[in-house]
Amino acid sequence: MRVFFITSNKGKFLEASTILREYGIELQMDVNHKKVEIQSDSLEEIVSAALANVCNGPVSDYYVVEDDGLFINELRGFPGPYSSYVYKTIGIWGILKLMADARDRSAYFKSVVGLCGPNGIRLFTGVVHGEIATEPRGSGGFGFDPIFIPLGYSNTFAELGLDVKNKLSHRARAFRALGEWLLGNR
Amino acid sequence: MRVFFITSNKGKFLEASTILREYGIELQMDVNHKKVEIQSDSLEEIVSAALANVCNGPVSDYYVVEDDGLFINELRGFPGPYSSYVYKTIGIWGILKLMADARDRSAYFKSVVGLCGPNGIRLFTGVVHGEIATEPRGSGGFGFDPIFIPLGYSNTFAELGLDVKNKLSHRARAFRALGEWLLGNR
Repeated sequence: MRVFFITSNKGKFLEASTILREYGIELQMDVNHKKVEIQSDSLEEIVSAALANVCNGPVSDYYVVEDDGLFINELRGFPGPYSSYVYKTIGIWGILKLMADARDRSAYFKSVVGLCGPNGIRLFTGVVHGEIATEPRGSGGFGFDPIFIPLGYSNTFAELGLDVKNKLSHRARAFRALGEWLLGNR
Repeated sequence: MRVFFITSNKGKFLEASTILREYGIELQMDVNHKKVEIQSDSLEEIVSAALANVCNGPVSDYYVVEDDGLFINELRGFPGPYSSYVYKTIGIWGILKLMADARDRSAYFKSVVGLCGPNGIRLFTGVVHGEIATEPRGSGGFGFDPIFIPLGYSNTFAELGLDVKNKLSHRARAFRALGEWLLGNR
């Protein structure tokens, strides 16, 4: 069974491949397929549309697409599905500015992993709840990790490092659900 | 010649149909086609992809798709192509907060109008330069109009009203270019 992850994000690939190795699956990075992302408030819609572009005919291998976002309740879900665009424009600084006098700092990261293969399309979801820090802390991870403190911890994802992040992150949860499904259905 | 504008935004339709009437063209609102917008930093790419979904075979009528955005230099182009998502989440309030102590308040609105018809696909572009106001003013227009002051004016688009906006706005410029082309080529 070959499983290709259509992504050019090395941070995501590292996290996903570490998880799937627990299930004996050697994930391969696929940079040849172009991941077409539509604009939508729903990660499920974005992932389904991206998969439809790849698996528009019978396939013999498995292809994986993932999309995720940081949803901040005080900001009505912003930056949500547009987290990577927001990260590269207004960045962590912008989020902290928007949250400067927020009463509610709660937020969640959500990941949707889409799989297409010989037996069709399936989606797997992972969520981790937490809150937005008042300043960036830590150097691990990527994106908004330095300002996200998962529930039950006092450190940010960037401080906790990959080992802890891969126990509880949204992406870890979604890829673990994928790993379990693949073990049972390949 | 029938010209359909694929949009569900009544404000955009009102502006566009007013402009095209100057050219003797009666624009029709098309809410049946679904406008599929991809995620991209480029309005041209978004509009081209949306058109490709509508005109994937020979057509006898004209179809128009438009996308626009507010590009704020201090914020590296944010909110750009995601202006409508940003408007409905963090809104005008969020933009003003991000710009609170900005040294450079310059910004521009850009509109890309895509046309497909019997003779293929064409794009028309309109830009208006200006700056971000320090507080919202006026009740006309929609979206970020209350905080955009076009160059050479001291009032916002929302204060200037549709007549003036339709003389100088990004969308007016792009639709005027479309009107002229249609007059010469139908």
